[in-house]
Amino acid sequence: MSLPKIIIEDIVRRALLEDLGHGHDSTSDALIPANQNGRLVMKARELGCLAGIDIAETAFRLFDSNLVVSKHMEDGASLKEGQEILSVEGAAQSILSAERTALNFMIHLSGIATETNKYVQAINGTKANIVCTRKTLPGLRAVQKYAVRMGGGSNHRFGLDDGVLIKDNHIALAGGVGPAIEKARAHTGHMVKIEIEVDTLEQLEDVLEHKTDIILLDNMDPGQLQEAVRLINGRALSEASGGVNLETVRSIAETGVDIISVGALTHSARALDIGLDIDV
Amino acid sequence: MSLPKIIIEDIVRRALLEDLGHGHDSTSDALIPANQNGRLVMKARELGCLAGIDIAETAFRLFDSNLVVSKHMEDGASLKEGQEILSVEGAAQSILSAERTALNFMIHLSGIATETNKYVQAINGTKANIVCTRKTLPGLRAVQKYAVRMGGGSNHRFGLDDGVLIKDNHIALAGGVGPAIEKARAHTGHMVKIEIEVDTLEQLEDVLEHKTDIILLDNMDPGQLQEAVRLINGRALSEASGGVNLETVRSIAETGVDIISVGALTHSARALDIGLDIDV
Amino acid sequence: MSLPKIIIEDIVRRALLEDLGHGHDSTSDALIPANQNGRLVMKARELGCLAGIDIAETAFRLFDSNLVVSKHMEDGASLKEGQEILSVEGAAQSILSAERTALNFMIHLSGIATETNKYVQAINGTKANIVCTRKTLPGLRAVQKYAVRMGGGSNHRFGLDDGVLIKDNHIALAGGVGPAIEKARAHTGHMVKIEIEVDTLEQLEDVLEHKTDIILLDNMDPGQLQEAVRLINGRALSEASGGVNLETVRSIAETGVDIISVGALTHSARALDIGLDIDV
Amino acid sequence: MSLPKIIIEDIVRRALLEDLGHGHDSTSDALIPANQNGRLVMKARELGCLAGIDIAETAFRLFDSNLVVSKHMEDGASLKEGQEILSVEGAAQSILSAERTALNFMIHLSGIATETNKYVQAINGTKANIVCTRKTLPGLRAVQKYAVRMGGGSNHRFGLDDGVLIKDNHIALAGGVGPAIEKARAHTGHMVKIEIEVDTLEQLEDVLEHKTDIILLDNMDPGQLQEAVRLINGRALSEASGGVNLETVRSIAETGVDIISVGALTHSARALDIGLDIDV
Amino acid sequence: MSLPKIIIEDIVRRALLEDLGHGHDSTSDALIPANQNGRLVMKARELGCLAGIDIAETAFRLFDSNLVVSKHMEDGASLKEGQEILSVEGAAQSILSAERTALNFMIHLSGIATETNKYVQAINGTKANIVCTRKTLPGLRAVQKYAVRMGGGSNHRFGLDDGVLIKDNHIALAGGVGPAIEKARAHTGHMVKIEIEVDTLEQLEDVLEHKTDIILLDNMDPGQLQEAVRLINGRALSEASGGVNLETVRSIAETGVDIISVGALTHSARALDIGLDIDV
Amino acid sequence: MSLPKIIIEDIVRRALLEDLGHGHDSTSDALIPANQNGRLVMKARELGCLAGIDIAETAFRLFDSNLVVSKHMEDGASLKEGQEILSVEGAAQSILSAERTALNFMIHLSGIATETNKYVQAINGTKANIVCTRKTLPGLRAVQKYAVRMGGGSNHRFGLDDGVLIKDNHIALAGGVGPAIEKARAHTGHMVKIEIEVDTLEQLEDVLEHKTDIILLDNMDPGQLQEAVRLINGRALSEASGGVNLETVRSIAETGVDIISVGALTHSARALDIGLDIDV
Repeated sequence: MSLPKIIIEDIVRRALLEDLGHGHDSTSDALIPANQNGRLVMKARELGCLAGIDIAETAFRLFDSNLVVSKHMEDGASLKEGQEILSVEGAAQSILSAERTALNFMIHLSGIATETNKYVQAINGTKANIVCTRKTLPGLRAVQKYAVRMGGGSNHRFGLDDGVLIKDNHIALAGGVGPAIEKARAHTGHMVKIEIEVDTLEQLEDVLEHKTDIILLDNMDPGQLQEAVRLINGRALSEASGGVNLETVRSIAETGVDIISVGALTHSARALDIGLDIDV
Repeated sequence: MSLPKIIIEDIVRRALLEDLGHGHDSTSDALIPANQNGRLVMKARELGCLAGIDIAETAFRLFDSNLVVSKHMEDGASLKEGQEILSVEGAAQSILSAERTALNFMIHLSGIATETNKYVQAINGTKANIVCTRKTLPGLRAVQKYAVRMGGGSNHRFGLDDGVLIKDNHIALAGGVGPAIEKARAHTGHMVKIEIEVDTLEQLEDVLEHKTDIILLDNMDPGQLQEAVRLINGRALSEASGGVNLETVRSIAETGVDIISVGALTHSARALDIGLDIDV
Repeated sequence: MSLPKIIIEDIVRRALLEDLGHGHDSTSDALIPANQNGRLVMKARELGCLAGIDIAETAFRLFDSNLVVSKHMEDGASLKEGQEILSVEGAAQSILSAERTALNFMIHLSGIATETNKYVQAINGTKANIVCTRKTLPGLRAVQKYAVRMGGGSNHRFGLDDGVLIKDNHIALAGGVGPAIEKARAHTGHMVKIEIEVDTLEQLEDVLEHKTDIILLDNMDPGQLQEAVRLINGRALSEASGGVNLETVRSIAETGVDIISVGALTHSARALDIGLDIDV
Repeated sequence: MSLPKIIIEDIVRRALLEDLGHGHDSTSDALIPANQNGRLVMKARELGCLAGIDIAETAFRLFDSNLVVSKHMEDGASLKEGQEILSVEGAAQSILSAERTALNFMIHLSGIATETNKYVQAINGTKANIVCTRKTLPGLRAVQKYAVRMGGGSNHRFGLDDGVLIKDNHIALAGGVGPAIEKARAHTGHMVKIEIEVDTLEQLEDVLEHKTDIILLDNMDPGQLQEAVRLINGRALSEASGGVNLETVRSIAETGVDIISVGALTHSARALDIGLDIDV
Repeated sequence: MSLPKIIIEDIVRRALLEDLGHGHDSTSDALIPANQNGRLVMKARELGCLAGIDIAETAFRLFDSNLVVSKHMEDGASLKEGQEILSVEGAAQSILSAERTALNFMIHLSGIATETNKYVQAINGTKANIVCTRKTLPGLRAVQKYAVRMGGGSNHRFGLDDGVLIKDNHIALAGGVGPAIEKARAHTGHMVKIEIEVDTLEQLEDVLEHKTDIILLDNMDPGQLQEAVRLINGRALSEASGGVNLETVRSIAETGVDIISVGALTHSARALDIGLDIDV
Repeated sequence: MSLPKIIIEDIVRRALLEDLGHGHDSTSDALIPANQNGRLVMKARELGCLAGIDIAETAFRLFDSNLVVSKHMEDGASLKEGQEILSVEGAAQSILSAERTALNFMIHLSGIATETNKYVQAINGTKANIVCTRKTLPGLRAVQKYAVRMGGGSNHRFGLDDGVLIKDNHIALAGGVGPAIEKARAHTGHMVKIEIEVDTLEQLEDVLEHKTDIILLDNMDPGQLQEAVRLINGRALSEASGGVNLETVRSIAETGVDIISVGALTHSARALDIGLDIDV
């Protein structure tokens, strides 16, 4: 799923205004003649997966609608060191004022896409899907989840309103697994899926006496996961979470779980190294 | 510098609305009786440095002003595994709806503070300061820079309007080092400092013929940095950037530079592991 | 599901500002002494179902935090002619300035709840649920859908992001039923349900060769609906839409469909008659 | 009076964002190729009066500025069943994502215009004007009042700041009719008209001892209205309100009142049936 | 007319955020211990008329709800040099951060009230009212017009939507005085007053053949104004504008005009000198 | 420094919406045929310095993107009586609706630029710079400070976050000059300048024992200023404030101070007289 223009513009506008602070660029404006043109090229400086090119383009366009932006790739593409991603031509002042905002989005989102893609590659051939969680950075959820998709992953819930996810605390407060699932069914619409978390195989057996759409197997080791998948036996989707990293993810995927969720994709993403050159 | 309440509320409100999406919490609302009270405790799960406790408190308070939040520590404090950070008492529904937003801020900002603090410890005894850059995540600059301060670091520019930073592209477009500095002086107010970037010792000598406040020594090795510091000889502050990591930072600091800037503090922060328990 | 305070305040604030226009109440302010107190009582003037009492309370509270609002009922309650709903005590100026906004919400939302409840009563004893659609009034979706719930109905999708609903145009553009369902599965997360619309029993048979969560039976008569329910045979939920009104709804429910959707609940709601008295 | 573009864009932008929720269209985006073009036609499915065509156009344009929208009619025009109103050509994805928002505005506003027009037709040949009130749906006042104009009606006050309207409660709190009118005169500017409500002919006589611009005759039957018009004798405009419906409005108009206000035009509007077809 | 709290908070919040820029007060926060209390007193330093005390109070309260603000006067009161207006007690950091915003509003609005009051005093004993115009400073219209009222003046139109004001250009484009007035009557509601501008006595005679509520006599000398008032003879209100200053205003008022409009009250207001002292 | 388009559009949009109030122009819309074109010319009516032409242009463009605006001058240019500044061609309705907003900005900002320029001319030949302060009108700081630059002046701090300015109250609360400066150094980044206020030559001597960037000499007479400049002897910049007006400014500048700050430039600006003609 792509990001609608109206969503991109909203978040990019805020970012440009944040960088402008009291409303000016002290450096470019003072130093560079208004009629001086230039050309900026963004290039990858390491291997990775691209995400955020339309957002970067929007940063330049919103700052100065006369800038001409050329996209040399599309989001989701593989990046090699030195590869040209995007170029911009027009007023050098505008290019220099907008480039940091464009780049801040692109290095962050490409970092997420690249990390996601490593997980996706690591489980290649299994049936599992890599998904992100609600552990996102405030204000950036829509674009972070987009970046996960560009890296080949899928998205878990987008918010509190998006599906029911019954965790341990909910179960305790609702009076047990049975009442929790029953209340969820009774109070949510027909478009809403219900997922429930279990920590042990005993809890799983309890849950399996009720109908749910997904069962979250939290912090289980591969042996437990395999047994859990066997017990569920297709009656619900199975999701593994907890202790997932690039070393463990393949053994988790090979247990037969349907979904593997990784909070670190969005809460601990390393920026991808992307640089820029400007020609006068 | 602390964050004014009016700034915190603005960013927290957006984050809560983002998580609520179409305006409801499908799970807590369906499962938990409105009159059910609970108590949440946030605890550190690893060593670190705390940042974001007032933001977390605000998330609970804005969601439900009847929640009673107790802060057991202040930002900047050291965290040990198992240590209680904050507790909340009141309606369990509200606590469960707001906890993810509170935690998303706290794990991200404490991650930044913790990483910053590692750099600060690594250069202990030298005169250098660790600073962050404008490579921040869009919409989060004010809080990320606050987290750097909580970790013992300082802040570089907050935005395009905050000081003049003349980079290589500006120099080229302005017609050289001399004209660049001269134009900067002519067009900026008396409260504005001027920093200029140099990549080589030759450029540095060129720059030293003019008066600037700070000289950014980009991508120099410790030997070059030491020579640069000698050449500058107190006529400006010196800032090292490029290739800074926890392995290299001490040797860089020992060259005598005044400032070491680290973009990764804000663009590639790993979240700190902070968990929560809820008592019914 | 209730509406979080932060959601209510956002929409009520806009409504108060809309009514204040350039920022004042020409009448109350000119005529009524600032120290004059009063008491307002809102009363039902016809039978119905209440929705919006917290919103009305918020309108008075946001306008003047010194007003004391007493709620005599909760949303979802039955209203009889003459019954007191809510009373407010405090500065008469403030009460008179805020009452129209409070009442505009309450008569609209109670109108929706009342109409919904008529449909719910009409199908009493069948297994079907009454749901609203995305045919809502712009800016009011969250509160309109809340009112449907207060009337005993359920909610269909909250927005374009909330579940997949494959309509005739999507099928045509995607290249048929099979490719449409397949693409939907491939591009959406595990928390997303998939619903597909069919207009004929032939289309239904085509759809039943694929796995979907819900099948929308559009504009079918009771005979066709009954046959459709038989064909589906529990493999998906069935939803009837089109031509639903208070005369037809029971015969539709008796066909055994799971869900009956009624756009008119939100796009053509008649306001409930609720009045107010003010004592000096 | 038309609606300025800047007003339309503000309200349409909110509506599109409301429908997009967390920022994507799960269905169109997954199913329809990005390069697939299509053509949408909106057609009336019943008799009525059009309102909202520029708003619908704006919904498509704001979502995707490459869509080409053709308006086949102007607001205020009569609609016959089957008549084409508007067509859109361009990316099918964009058309399908924006159509619900466009249509939600158009069916609601055309519903208001159509109902207004029935009242206007019903009093044809009398001198009375049909006006709407402040009983509007929160957030939609400007567009609802526009729709009333498109149906041939006029507008009463737009908000609390727009003219003085002294109701029974104001009179009581101000110390009677005389003090109320006097205070209104003293505290409002020369551009502000003053209207006062009376419930009985006795009150009317009291009011007629003072100068006001309009007198609101509340809940009077035609006999009382006729007598009231006679008593006023052109010294102020007369407005009838209360108990106005399509059956009673002509007899009310024939009493000679200048204005007839109908809250139901905006608080209880039925949507007009407008449909759409999409050609691939 | 007072300003509702919800209006004041909206404009004050923006002003505080404007002053905080990237989100902090570099000085107070660095220098003043968090637990240091203080007391600020605002005092008049010259004669004048107070406006903006509730706005100033709101600035302190929004910045820090623990500050205790005492108002020693009310808006509209006369100020003498040295008189205490308002005092604040609480955290010295908060007081120093908020004082500039509070004071910026108060010196500007009191400046407007004071200047307005000079005009009002100058025409004492005549029947004319002093009014401001739409020549206000962008974003400040509601508060500027409030300040005019506090100085004893009245308000002309609040915006383009607030009454009809037919100027020379409108007349030319509408095809003359007659068509202009006729179109205005036909297209505006019964709550809307119509004013028309004339530059000469000939135009006035033309206008007097039609019914309008107010006639704006633009740039006429006292002799012409007197003749104009005689010609109008109570059939409409008369408004003088152009060339009004403190020297000319009395002679204008003595011509018998009802209203004298002065753009300079809001577009060229001099700030009133109000200072502050802080006790530790 | 120019104002970025994204900053201008933000402030102009608010201003247009403020003037439209409930969303329409009662006059132009009723009187002027939609297809009537016109041409507006803005002309100076007195000598001055232009500021705000891009803002005025934006007001017309945002209101109606089909208007064609021609700028005949650039900001900072000298204006003579009768000189054409800007012309607009297109729909007369749009031109008349937008002109007041365009003009309100232009007369205010040109007033500031003109007044600033008088100060700049008055000190011609000295080394001093004229600067404005934070005594700006709420919501207008960015554009007011821009206007000061167009008049030849410079800008002091843009906000609380922009440099450290230690005033008398800060010194008292921080425990004296020494601790104040020390704390400021310790808590602010390397891009932040530190300025401190002194009222007497004794205080100045105290301050000169510490390193600061700028010393604010408050309310000193020319004799004291001259002595202060001698004492400072280039170790910091010197700023004179208090009692500055067009009569005193030259004698102040001749004392050798570097900066002269004038709050009245922004808090008490008189509008420049700029008029407009419209051709049908």
